[in-house]
Amino acid sequence: MKTIEGGVTAAKGFKAACTAAGIKYSDRNDMAMIYSEKPCVTAGTFTKNVVKAAPVIWDRNIVRSGKDVHGVVINAGIANACTGKEGMDMCRQTSLALAKQAGIDEEGVLVASTGVIGKQLPMDKLEKGVSDMYPKLSDTIEAGHMAAKAIMTTDTIPKEAAVSFEIGGKNVTLGAMCKGSGMIHPNMCTMLAFITTDVSIDKELLQDALLSVVEDTYNMISVDGDTSTNDTCVVLANGLAGNPKIDSYNEDYKIFKEALLTVNKKLAMTMAGDGEGATALFEVKVTGADSKEDAKILAKSVVSSSLTKAAIYGHDANWGRILCALGYSGVEFDPYQVDLYFESKAGKLLIAKGGLATSYSEEEATAILSEKHVTAICDMNMGTSEAIAWGCDLTHEYVDINADYRS
Amino acid sequence: MKTIEGGVTAAKGFKAACTAAGIKYSDRNDMAMIYSEKPCVTAGTFTKNVVKAAPVIWDRNIVRSGKDVHGVVINAGIANACTGKEGMDMCRQTSLALAKQAGIDEEGVLVASTGVIGKQLPMDKLEKGVSDMYPKLSDTIEAGHMAAKAIMTTDTIPKEAAVSFEIGGKNVTLGAMCKGSGMIHPNMCTMLAFITTDVSIDKELLQDALLSVVEDTYNMISVDGDTSTNDTCVVLANGLAGNPKIDSYNEDYKIFKEALLTVNKKLAMTMAGDGEGATALFEVKVTGADSKEDAKILAKSVVSSSLTKAAIYGHDANWGRILCALGYSGVEFDPYQVDLYFESKAGKLLIAKGGLATSYSEEEATAILSEKHVTAICDMNMGTSEAIAWGCDLTHEYVDINADYRS
Repeated sequence: MKTIEGGVTAAKGFKAACTAAGIKYSDRNDMAMIYSEKPCVTAGTFTKNVVKAAPVIWDRNIVRSGKDVHGVVINAGIANACTGKEGMDMCRQTSLALAKQAGIDEEGVLVASTGVIGKQLPMDKLEKGVSDMYPKLSDTIEAGHMAAKAIMTTDTIPKEAAVSFEIGGKNVTLGAMCKGSGMIHPNMCTMLAFITTDVSIDKELLQDALLSVVEDTYNMISVDGDTSTNDTCVVLANGLAGNPKIDSYNEDYKIFKEALLTVNKKLAMTMAGDGEGATALFEVKVTGADSKEDAKILAKSVVSSSLTKAAIYGHDANWGRILCALGYSGVEFDPYQVDLYFESKAGKLLIAKGGLATSYSEEEATAILSEKHVTAICDMNMGTSEAIAWGCDLTHEYVDINADYRS
Repeated sequence: MKTIEGGVTAAKGFKAACTAAGIKYSDRNDMAMIYSEKPCVTAGTFTKNVVKAAPVIWDRNIVRSGKDVHGVVINAGIANACTGKEGMDMCRQTSLALAKQAGIDEEGVLVASTGVIGKQLPMDKLEKGVSDMYPKLSDTIEAGHMAAKAIMTTDTIPKEAAVSFEIGGKNVTLGAMCKGSGMIHPNMCTMLAFITTDVSIDKELLQDALLSVVEDTYNMISVDGDTSTNDTCVVLANGLAGNPKIDSYNEDYKIFKEALLTVNKKLAMTMAGDGEGATALFEVKVTGADSKEDAKILAKSVVSSSLTKAAIYGHDANWGRILCALGYSGVEFDPYQVDLYFESKAGKLLIAKGGLATSYSEEEATAILSEKHVTAICDMNMGTSEAIAWGCDLTHEYVDINADYRS
């Protein structure tokens, strides 16, 4: 497997386009489209929030139905959540707009929205956006890149990843883009992530691979503890690579799943590091836990702790807050067995041994914590299970962004 | 029942003192003592964090043993958490220092600490502090007030409350002080709260009353979602009011419990409103829930949501975040049944009806949200259960305080 340039247009047969529809922003692209002539097998996972945005309900129904999908229409600026029947109608009309132009079934189009909750979408602008984009669809890397930029809200960087690998002597490509910066504490899935691949695979296996990968990637990141109403992660597979169809949990499946993990891990980490206002990617690695589940709960508790995140922002080795966050996670352990390390490009430092402070150098700790990617390692010394969670620091900028998000 | 002036010295026979022991702060009092010549029946609840500070373990053992207690020695600056055997020795030596001076059993003294985790206490300073305070013990309101100030860390105001009421023709008084501003997300109890009363009551009934009251007060507040290692809430009852001893769940018990609720509710609300960096007390009232437990979970989810808290700071009626936080709480409900209101001294406004935006005035909403005490009311329209949670807004100041707490 090798990392390649590009995003959703990396795989054969996938095109993208974007446009400035003026839904919320006046000076930038705010709609994007992904499209494959060849119908795609589709898998998806969605938010577990009881309050589900209309596009989540629309997409989930399509994915569950097993219908072939040709593309996705995405808008940034208004979430289409808490919008009732009118919101559902918007989904249908948006899909219909593309379906008419492309001559496909209206239920062959997924929709996705991100932005403020509780406002209705301007349907006229959405329909015009679809008409504008369809003729501009392109399979260039640039088209994918522009689409990744168009779906950003408070994100500061577009998020793309792609890999290629071989299955049955055929070159297979997997590309993806996502957005997400605030209201990020995915449960089953993350804000918006779109993965395209030319692999030939059975729908059920695709769904299984996605669910498994999401558990170790998007479900292990947190920016602010708020699980969104719109979390959506879909993968479209059009089969154009021509590989022998993956239809059992064989070696080929493993290769594909590994590629899916690589791409989504990169995107999840990028999303955490680009958390609203963040100055650093904060990685928490729990080792020596009794079970994988315990390890995950412990890692997520630390990565979600406001106090720990503020300390990371201040480059302050306030390790007591980490032990405190492990302690209230709900997992039972002996605090006096825990070893804590801080690690970054600047080095690795044992901060606490058996739950007690070592005589570490504060200067060295501060140097380590001043990097852009900081890792806290918590060795529970109980078992052999591990997990990694990703988050970011808590900064003034986060407060700025969210105190007047709507204005 | 009437609210009276004062705090821990309000009830008969309780004295307090404080001193500048130089444990962390150089220019202020940082130790306090509460003392009753007459031995007290004692109840207490403590943090559920797996990582328990040494004083929590010390106090819990004493409270469980049923031994009489005479007083409490408190220090601010170092939490005595993650301090191992040495930390436990500190508790014993601190207790012993007071016990020697007062001629009482060393296990008749509770200890409490708040501050940075992972550092050892300077025993010499603690012992000198106890020696300095004991001769200064006073039953004046001012002495109680000074003690409430001495135990502050990032708190901006001292927190006291007192009420008097009648039981069996006798005047009974209940006073209290507490501290807490950051790492506030109590589970079973809050940061540090000390309640003194001259009521005569059976120990088991005192413990029951405390547990019940804590559920609706301290356990319903959150500043930052971080459950501390040091949460402690103790009540000392010396019986000097001379009322017929409360030894069953009778009318007298109800009167006492109501008084206990009043005092602790006031303190809990004050603590939430004085959350680190807060500019407003944020109250979330859930009505029409299916069960009391559901109502509590829903209210706490909203009051703990970083995004909602940031919106309150910005006086932004971003009600979608509230619905979102209800949605990820884990409680099942129909979003399209929920009515949302904002309320404060400036008025009351229906913001969303049946899960959809009303045509409310943003100006009016902003005016309501600009007050110092802001309430969000979430009517689930499912049943008849209610709960209230208290928190505060998320501000730049919170980040400031916690990015360099140790420096």
